[in-house]
Amino acid sequence: MKAPEAVLKYLADNEERFIEELFSYARIPSISAQSVHTGDMRDCAKWLVARCKKAGLQAEIRKTSGHPVVLAWTPRQDPKKPTFLIYGHYDVQPPEPLDLWTSPPFEPRRIGRRVYARGISDNKGQHLAHINAIEAWLKTGNELPCNVNFLIEGEEEIGSKALYGFLPKHVRELACRALVVSDTEIPGLKHPALCYSLRGMAPMEIRLEGPARDLHSGLFGGAVDNPAMVLCQMLGALRDERGQVTIPGFYDDVAELSHYERQQMAKVPFHEEKFRRSVGVRTLFGETGYTPDEQRAARPTFEINGLTSGYQGEGGKTIIPSWASAKITLRLVPNQDPKKILALLRKHLKAVCPPTVRLQLTEGQGGEPYMLDPTGALAQAGRRAAKRGFGRECLLVRSGGSIPIIAAFKKYLKADSLMLGFALPDDNAHSPNEKFSLDAYRAGMKMSAHLWPELAAAA
Amino acid sequence: MKAPEAVLKYLADNEERFIEELFSYARIPSISAQSVHTGDMRDCAKWLVARCKKAGLQAEIRKTSGHPVVLAWTPRQDPKKPTFLIYGHYDVQPPEPLDLWTSPPFEPRRIGRRVYARGISDNKGQHLAHINAIEAWLKTGNELPCNVNFLIEGEEEIGSKALYGFLPKHVRELACRALVVSDTEIPGLKHPALCYSLRGMAPMEIRLEGPARDLHSGLFGGAVDNPAMVLCQMLGALRDERGQVTIPGFYDDVAELSHYERQQMAKVPFHEEKFRRSVGVRTLFGETGYTPDEQRAARPTFEINGLTSGYQGEGGKTIIPSWASAKITLRLVPNQDPKKILALLRKHLKAVCPPTVRLQLTEGQGGEPYMLDPTGALAQAGRRAAKRGFGRECLLVRSGGSIPIIAAFKKYLKADSLMLGFALPDDNAHSPNEKFSLDAYRAGMKMSAHLWPELAAAA
Repeated sequence: MKAPEAVLKYLADNEERFIEELFSYARIPSISAQSVHTGDMRDCAKWLVARCKKAGLQAEIRKTSGHPVVLAWTPRQDPKKPTFLIYGHYDVQPPEPLDLWTSPPFEPRRIGRRVYARGISDNKGQHLAHINAIEAWLKTGNELPCNVNFLIEGEEEIGSKALYGFLPKHVRELACRALVVSDTEIPGLKHPALCYSLRGMAPMEIRLEGPARDLHSGLFGGAVDNPAMVLCQMLGALRDERGQVTIPGFYDDVAELSHYERQQMAKVPFHEEKFRRSVGVRTLFGETGYTPDEQRAARPTFEINGLTSGYQGEGGKTIIPSWASAKITLRLVPNQDPKKILALLRKHLKAVCPPTVRLQLTEGQGGEPYMLDPTGALAQAGRRAAKRGFGRECLLVRSGGSIPIIAAFKKYLKADSLMLGFALPDDNAHSPNEKFSLDAYRAGMKMSAHLWPELAAAA
Repeated sequence: MKAPEAVLKYLADNEERFIEELFSYARIPSISAQSVHTGDMRDCAKWLVARCKKAGLQAEIRKTSGHPVVLAWTPRQDPKKPTFLIYGHYDVQPPEPLDLWTSPPFEPRRIGRRVYARGISDNKGQHLAHINAIEAWLKTGNELPCNVNFLIEGEEEIGSKALYGFLPKHVRELACRALVVSDTEIPGLKHPALCYSLRGMAPMEIRLEGPARDLHSGLFGGAVDNPAMVLCQMLGALRDERGQVTIPGFYDDVAELSHYERQQMAKVPFHEEKFRRSVGVRTLFGETGYTPDEQRAARPTFEINGLTSGYQGEGGKTIIPSWASAKITLRLVPNQDPKKILALLRKHLKAVCPPTVRLQLTEGQGGEPYMLDPTGALAQAGRRAAKRGFGRECLLVRSGGSIPIIAAFKKYLKADSLMLGFALPDDNAHSPNEKFSLDAYRAGMKMSAHLWPELAAAA
């Protein structure tokens, strides 16, 4: 089930324009987390609608409780054909810290076959490749063997709250046989991969309030507790020396890795020394008894994302800070439930918090972990298309990242997601100097072109 | 040994002008820690020289390796009379966090007998009271029974580094029988107090470097250590549940409180519930076996002054931060040595730091603790002057604060320091809404007027 030659030729002939359009898209600072960028978010959605229409799709912006979503669909849909829904997100992570970028994050800079810009890999370049592939089908007059719809949201990086509201109200409009999601990573251009599992996530902000104001640490220190010290003691005790999370009950629902899975994961090339050097640490650290790939994709974690307390400026300031806070996220694996895990954390923190400080907990939007049968027909079809796009066998992997909305698609649309991302391990997603490979962009377009006949046949 | 009536009358007659001058002085944002205020520091020193000259003193700015010092001295010095040196500092703490001030920190605001401004109590108002008192002696033509010199520095809040360099080179110029320092606190206007002991201080910045950049906590979390977590674990373990510091050897040189001292300290009025409410905490916390006043004045502590790591902005960011840091200070008591204590801390942190992060330690300028014989002639003379100024018996107290240069005066000038401060416990030194009592200002001037005949007789 290959794509017609004309479709592939169209992709090759138009590649320079597709790259220019990628640059235009990446220039829009669509940072969903920062309210100052609300106008940019709307501009980005408008750009996307115009791009879809140019591809021959019908498209529109749809209002939500937050940032808008963009819907698009192939024209003249045939109810007898299966329908597939491509999901992506046009919002990006905040680019801070800016001083670590070697070029401005919203001025895409091409060096050889790499382009540097915030959000270009996560996720703009990846769903744009699908739009390009559908354009090739439509503009060459080849009939798609299925209906293809797009759902591109603007709140993935902040928990997809608006889409969680939108989804249940638009179940019929979004109905599909399966979703196609390109927002995961592959080991390398020679190793395309189908991702069959995602970790879930549970975020919380922990704030401890001590004295009503910052106090002179000489005049008061010793008789008044220090909220920064209490925060360190409470957080520090949440991980033991084996790298396990100490929240009581935390591991109760964890699905242990099967022998088959560990075998499949072992096929994924992993060079520990290269990995260590690429992240720039002296030694790796993880839960005892698991490989690094298992630790970061199939085991749950507790991470501190940020710490704030007291004086952080130039020089020193001899105070007992009035308060201290931490932003944290727990990464969860099947079958942990974010609501249950946050309740366990809340209960534990309340139990261990001393009476000298006031505890304030703010829960963020969590996301459930996800798992697809890697041996099913859908997965096999996806692996064949990836093999054609990249010219190499497609591995089976788990991702440690979270796309919480995938579990919601399963719940509301009763549809599984085929995760065929093509971000590379050194793309610096969520980090300074995020980049995207133009070779991955090209292979991704080819994979998408081949995907529709494969999926239609498997459906 | 009282001050002449004319001197006291001069103080009363000129009080409104002295208050206006206090306002002018407090308007200068002389923040030594922030390099953007270097010009303000110079302006502040100039203002002070002008004010001293107006008082009839000779005065000049003296260059140092950092912010300048101001020297002043009574004219026509008599080598047969004893010389006393008044020490103070014109620099102030950073005013941040600004949003907690009810009026701008460098626009003094008077409400009744209180004036709100950064640095007005710590230390501008207190040494200005001495300048006013000497002016009263000089302008009324009364002959001072001693020579009185002033040394007002600009780096007390950042560790007096420049003065540490200046002092040994100007030992002859600064020679004195004793120093008078008004930079300590009294329990209240009805309880003037001579402070006979100070805590020392040892500051350090602890920075842990993990991955070379912030990492996606989903894609990497579990296999790469989190420097914020390691920092919490390292710092949290530095205090045990009894409130004791766990650095090995930390208590080796601590001089335990004598029975006599505990008796004297017990005379100081302390209302635990009132104190608790004034600092706004739910319950107090301190080392087991000591009263709150003993905990905060006679026992050493480990305080976190600030924590910084990862994303601290709006919303969340799912990262493993590249680094985490803490600003800390240890408060020390006689006979702990800051250099020895910092070495112990450094050794301990190196021993417990895991290989997953790089440890960077930056030591700040420490200060030794200090102790004066509270039963000696100098102390008695000071207590009598305070009784005349405030109209009440003068208590004997220890301060938990640090004036590290006091130990250096002892070392280089071989002179003890008489600490006769008159800051009040609710002055909010180092905190937002710092204030100064105009009643304390008045009583402090009177005390200073009476002090010189008392000291000359005792010398």
